[in-house]
Amino acid sequence: MPFLNDLSARALAAPESGIVELVNHARTRDNLLPLWVGEGDLPTPDFISKAASDALLGGETFYTWQRGVPELRQALANYYSRHFAVDLPADHFYATGSGMQAIVLCVQALTSPGDEMVYLSPTWPNIVSAIEIAGTKAVGLPLTFADGRWSLDFDRLEAMITPKTKALFINTPSNPTGWTATKEDLKKVLEVARRHGIWILADEIYALYYYGEGARAPSFLDVMEEGDRVLFANSFSKNWSMTGWRVGWIVAPPEIGHVLENLIQYSTSGVAAFMQRGAIAALDQGDGFVAENIARATQARDILCDRLIATNRVETLKPEGALYAFLKIDGITDSRKAAFDIVDQTGVGLAPGTAFGAGGEAFLRACFLRNARQIEEAADRLSRYILAL
Amino acid sequence: MPFLNDLSARALAAPESGIVELVNHARTRDNLLPLWVGEGDLPTPDFISKAASDALLGGETFYTWQRGVPELRQALANYYSRHFAVDLPADHFYATGSGMQAIVLCVQALTSPGDEMVYLSPTWPNIVSAIEIAGTKAVGLPLTFADGRWSLDFDRLEAMITPKTKALFINTPSNPTGWTATKEDLKKVLEVARRHGIWILADEIYALYYYGEGARAPSFLDVMEEGDRVLFANSFSKNWSMTGWRVGWIVAPPEIGHVLENLIQYSTSGVAAFMQRGAIAALDQGDGFVAENIARATQARDILCDRLIATNRVETLKPEGALYAFLKIDGITDSRKAAFDIVDQTGVGLAPGTAFGAGGEAFLRACFLRNARQIEEAADRLSRYILAL
Repeated sequence: MPFLNDLSARALAAPESGIVELVNHARTRDNLLPLWVGEGDLPTPDFISKAASDALLGGETFYTWQRGVPELRQALANYYSRHFAVDLPADHFYATGSGMQAIVLCVQALTSPGDEMVYLSPTWPNIVSAIEIAGTKAVGLPLTFADGRWSLDFDRLEAMITPKTKALFINTPSNPTGWTATKEDLKKVLEVARRHGIWILADEIYALYYYGEGARAPSFLDVMEEGDRVLFANSFSKNWSMTGWRVGWIVAPPEIGHVLENLIQYSTSGVAAFMQRGAIAALDQGDGFVAENIARATQARDILCDRLIATNRVETLKPEGALYAFLKIDGITDSRKAAFDIVDQTGVGLAPGTAFGAGGEAFLRACFLRNARQIEEAADRLSRYILAL
Repeated sequence: MPFLNDLSARALAAPESGIVELVNHARTRDNLLPLWVGEGDLPTPDFISKAASDALLGGETFYTWQRGVPELRQALANYYSRHFAVDLPADHFYATGSGMQAIVLCVQALTSPGDEMVYLSPTWPNIVSAIEIAGTKAVGLPLTFADGRWSLDFDRLEAMITPKTKALFINTPSNPTGWTATKEDLKKVLEVARRHGIWILADEIYALYYYGEGARAPSFLDVMEEGDRVLFANSFSKNWSMTGWRVGWIVAPPEIGHVLENLIQYSTSGVAAFMQRGAIAALDQGDGFVAENIARATQARDILCDRLIATNRVETLKPEGALYAFLKIDGITDSRKAAFDIVDQTGVGLAPGTAFGAGGEAFLRACFLRNARQIEEAADRLSRYILAL
């Protein structure tokens, strides 16, 4: 492998996704129920695709605004006004080529090689790799799992911070655990960040997929004050069934706008204008579709979790937010081995917890954003498998 | 500026594009002839947009292959077979979210923070910033300008290489200079790379815009041998009038495919499948359109360059390749100041050579991929301006 040995350490260190490995193993299996990736079963609704298609066929195929077209930035401002009751003018919003890229650009904006960034594990594996590829050290703090629920130990969080720590990555509601910070939790995190003069990079992409009191999960936007250093990375993927589009956004103070514009310029140089027209339709006309998606997720969560908990072999309670049951099943300790066995035996594709870092090794993740019939079938097959363990 | 001071050194160091500054100054001017960015005046042809639109409306909106859909990779293989007479199987090709991203991912694959990468200047400014944001040191070697032509001093090139040098970035035909390496030049560069065990990152996106003998510019593909370490970054932007799409590709040895797949996963996680359908149409059905684009560029180059050289105040000869006249005009030494003055006085938007780094300070770049009428008008206005200097 002469070529391979010659690549950079950071590239060689980036691991294959532990989910992709399993998907490649079984993607062509008959009768597959694919709950392994964070994606629903509906294509993008027509009113969104039509808006993008019209713009594309109408010739919106030239270079465009690096920060996003003005109408998209205004539509984002309106969306935050409706759903988060905040008055953020359009100059707080920046279009990116996926939520993933929003995170990468924020990591670049906040850290230089050799700096540290703290995150909570188990976590979406792409976070750690995005940080490390940027040359920054990713420092993980495991959440605590007890009585079927996850929680954050704030003293341990504060103890992770060193003079090299530049930012804290917080994903709430969390993929894969479903952990959802309360308003009090967010205040405490903010206090830690203030005390140490570090940034928060907030990933609240599942904010509307919330199963507690109120219309959405608590947000840093509810507790922030003037001068607090918080960037938000977000995505059109989950709310509007646009996973394949690769469009996201950043919320940031306008003072740093030209820096974000430069980082966009020097990474992918903007998002296709015609894609942005689809994103505007999603924001301006998509509240009804999002409500339907949330209703489907709520129903599917109840079906899947109630059935599996009824086996009396599953420790995890129902998640408070996001789209995943992160299952601790009695008798399973090696989730990678179990995920291969489960898909081979039952045809249900689950993501192994090993893919999500420290604390997740014994868990299996099921994405439940699918139609009730398939979720019932998955619950049946998994229940039988679990009871036979 | 409390937020701004708190950002990373690498983000703060990334400069605003020296072209964007001028565009923002004059984009709304009446009677503007915008030759300042590297973009033609035609929208994407319908057969390409239609293919993408059909896939989008047909529901190809889910996560897809990180390396690119198999049909796109095969279409790229066929394209290289037709235009470069090489037999590279489909597993040599990787779809990326722009040519810019292709370069960024290659920089990450080849270098770690603290390493060095050598490039030739004047150059497209995004190159230097992409390298530096990755934490790698960009080391520029100015090309030599004499008798109206640019050339590369191979001894000086070899002298730039240190133990920290991991790769050499070579853009030929070159933006902005039009410098086009001969086959002999490419062999010499390859020998330097072999001697020092370093990679070449080749940007040959203008290969088909070539005004010398033969159907295209010489390529590293013509002179490479088994085991040579060369990556190619490319883009759909210029050949198929798809600048706004943000789709590109990498050509690489299949042995490093999983590493590139990981870097794609952890940057933007792939290119929309429906965009890839457009790219496939471009490759499979686009040779005629590309030939038309080349014919337009050839005609426009003659009109613009002949007229300006006829003033006897322009030192630069006609470019051998790419889409730019990089003009050295008697009496102009500060190109930034001149670019503002020219657009204010004549309405012709030119990119100041200051934007392209060492060696370009006195030059002005004109992109000539436009219809003949506009190019004639630009030549008229510029000739009058030059003769009045």
